Amino acid sequence: MNAPAKAPARSPLMPLDDALASLLAQVVPLTGVEAVTTFDADGRVLAADLVSGLQVPPQDNSSMDGYAVRSADVTHAGAVLRVSQRVPAGAAGHRLEPGTAARIFTGAPIPAGADTVVMQEEADAVGGDFNAVRFHATPAPGQWIRRAGEDVMRGAVVLARGERLSPASLGLAASIGLSHLSVVARPRVALFSTGDELVMPGEVAPEAMPPGAIYNSNRFFLRALLHRLGCEVSDLGIVPDRREATVAALKTAADHHDLILTSGGVSVGEEDHIKPAVQQLGSLDLWQIAMKPGKPFAHGTVRRDAGAGADAAAACHFIGLPGNPVSSYITFLLLVRPFLLKLQGAREAAVKPLSLPAHFTVGKADKRREFLRARRNAEGGLDLFGNQSSGVLTSAVWGDGVVDNPAGTTIAPGDLVSFIPFSELLA
Amino acid sequence: MNAPAKAPARSPLMPLDDALASLLAQVVPLTGVEAVTTFDADGRVLAADLVSGLQVPPQDNSSMDGYAVRSADVTHAGAVLRVSQRVPAGAAGHRLEPGTAARIFTGAPIPAGADTVVMQEEADAVGGDFNAVRFHATPAPGQWIRRAGEDVMRGAVVLARGERLSPASLGLAASIGLSHLSVVARPRVALFSTGDELVMPGEVAPEAMPPGAIYNSNRFFLRALLHRLGCEVSDLGIVPDRREATVAALKTAADHHDLILTSGGVSVGEEDHIKPAVQQLGSLDLWQIAMKPGKPFAHGTVRRDAGAGADAAAACHFIGLPGNPVSSYITFLLLVRPFLLKLQGAREAAVKPLSLPAHFTVGKADKRREFLRARRNAEGGLDLFGNQSSGVLTSAVWGDGVVDNPAGTTIAPGDLVSFIPFSELLA
Repeated sequence: MNAPAKAPARSPLMPLDDALASLLAQVVPLTGVEAVTTFDADGRVLAADLVSGLQVPPQDNSSMDGYAVRSADVTHAGAVLRVSQRVPAGAAGHRLEPGTAARIFTGAPIPAGADTVVMQEEADAVGGDFNAVRFHATPAPGQWIRRAGEDVMRGAVVLARGERLSPASLGLAASIGLSHLSVVARPRVALFSTGDELVMPGEVAPEAMPPGAIYNSNRFFLRALLHRLGCEVSDLGIVPDRREATVAALKTAADHHDLILTSGGVSVGEEDHIKPAVQQLGSLDLWQIAMKPGKPFAHGTVRRDAGAGADAAAACHFIGLPGNPVSSYITFLLLVRPFLLKLQGAREAAVKPLSLPAHFTVGKADKRREFLRARRNAEGGLDLFGNQSSGVLTSAVWGDGVVDNPAGTTIAPGDLVSFIPFSELLA
Repeated sequence: MNAPAKAPARSPLMPLDDALASLLAQVVPLTGVEAVTTFDADGRVLAADLVSGLQVPPQDNSSMDGYAVRSADVTHAGAVLRVSQRVPAGAAGHRLEPGTAARIFTGAPIPAGADTVVMQEEADAVGGDFNAVRFHATPAPGQWIRRAGEDVMRGAVVLARGERLSPASLGLAASIGLSHLSVVARPRVALFSTGDELVMPGEVAPEAMPPGAIYNSNRFFLRALLHRLGCEVSDLGIVPDRREATVAALKTAADHHDLILTSGGVSVGEEDHIKPAVQQLGSLDLWQIAMKPGKPFAHGTVRRDAGAGADAAAACHFIGLPGNPVSSYITFLLLVRPFLLKLQGAREAAVKPLSLPAHFTVGKADKRREFLRARRNAEGGLDLFGNQSSGVLTSAVWGDGVVDNPAGTTIAPGDLVSFIPFSELLA
């Protein structure tokens, strides 16, 4: 009883920004590249600059349905011109005869000689066959003309390497004639579950759940989040509960994946065989991050066999998230998301927080930086979810983002707080 | 020359809110339902309430690694208790002997008799075999205990019919033991292209593009946007340029789709054979919406054959978007997106705009409500893309949202403006 105390080490918690910087410092972007059709490239990261071989639009064209004229020919309201040609979109037209108008449609090229467009709402067709037109007003030179190269100049880099493609950027790539794009390979992620208490939904009915058992929920949102980030996911199920089997499973996963991701088993005193297995196969840093929810977070590497078919990189990343659902969810969004984007060579991963007024109170300051689940209300302020426990996943469903509250800070109604919308982290 | 003027009708433009209300009034949500695995339900809309058959967590459990005790047994700092049992997560534990402590881990059920948890950082193991523990402070009753049912009560509706599922909500559904979910059928959308000037990327090289020809870019972002909204997309390519073939193609598409979507060909005087074909097969409203970019927008229906295999609904929706890329993109996000969400029975489709300071000037008011492409800067304000032409798709790639500027309004630096982030419309 009088033996020396064996307290667990109590090192100071690591600031989140330091943890993120340290994690990202260990990422070497993937070098694998694949060609996909532009249709299939949504969410992927460009592996090369897209340089335009043409200008968009290719020539001056009309942005209205109406009449292309020489502005010098329409000097007063009521002027009437003969309609000498008709230029639909896709046609080329020919040089405009002086003193005449060209009937023109949106997108059609401006005939040579014409220097302005009168929209049809400001003109009346006259004559039985629409063969002349009367103008209500005098047009300014250059009006309703979209200039050649206005959107894209020939030789311009329209999208740079590292751009994460959105629907609009697929449209832009198509507009310069690209049917295929060179994108960075998908990160291959092996997802493990750990925790003896975990039961997969469908395996045991709710009424038959043994005491202490809970359903595995983390695997479901982790898989969905990984897919949204463009990853290829191998779900390797529950980690076997013998050390040697665990070592074997990790080794096999490491050879064919870029990241092994698990949740649970990374707390200080937690029962787990993944930790020693990763340590045996490579290295593992166990961090205590000054964030709430969150705190325990592990990053390490698992060596690959140098043998046949092994990857260029000598090791596979390992990340262990905390087991509490909200902790797992939030640490994924704030740490694993930027990790995976950097792995794909994406240029921008940081999200810009909003500054919004709190419509709630946080009366008790926390020692850790908190990420409080909240949502925007109709008055432009933020409401707080009532139960901020890291076990209550409902908070992340109800909320549409998190308030990033610095350590040691209370919040009074009306205070401007930093808010990160989930939509920015999920898109 | 003196024949009566034949001006096109000049009816007042329709406010966007009226157009949206009128469009949504015509939507009857799909009745088709399918069961998908919870893993595959991201982005889908729930067809039935999810009612919990259990409480989450199932019993009181520890939110820390540490020691479960009777608070009455730890009345002063330095108190030492024998460790009488060890309760890992997933174990059940047994009734706590008075005057002893239970070693406990995060997620493990609180043994009967214990009423509080001391985290291990506030205790020291004493004795060679960790068989006793000394506490640094006196614990408050109930601390570090997550209560049974704290997240979900038995019988509670955890997610309601009409909820659009996110990664977090998949986790929540899994946490109550659901391996499959009943979701609304995917809307089946047929995508047509129209416009003689359109060339598909890959078909003609940039340097070989004939005068007047432009690459089809709209089809690329429309397909990606439809996929993000959970739709099944049939890309039916370019509309044939003969009236009868167009009628036949529309009829076939109508029988097997919920929506036929096209862009281009809906302006007042535009050359097009889709318009008369839709009118022949059903009905078509051509709207002029008071928005910029945007304005021309068509909604109608195409009757279905009553014959074999025809759908319950008597007609398929038809929507014609403007042809300019930015107009097409913005009208999709502001009109077609809520349309498709309502078609899936989603409860919430409206986005909450942000109020942010303009760091730019709009010196000339427009008659129409404008959606200006802008992006948030590091100072918390908004920068405007320089070229707001509806032909310049770069604006929608550069921007991370749109400023919703009311008709007739100028903007000065520092003015608070309404901003809709694209992330809210794309997630």
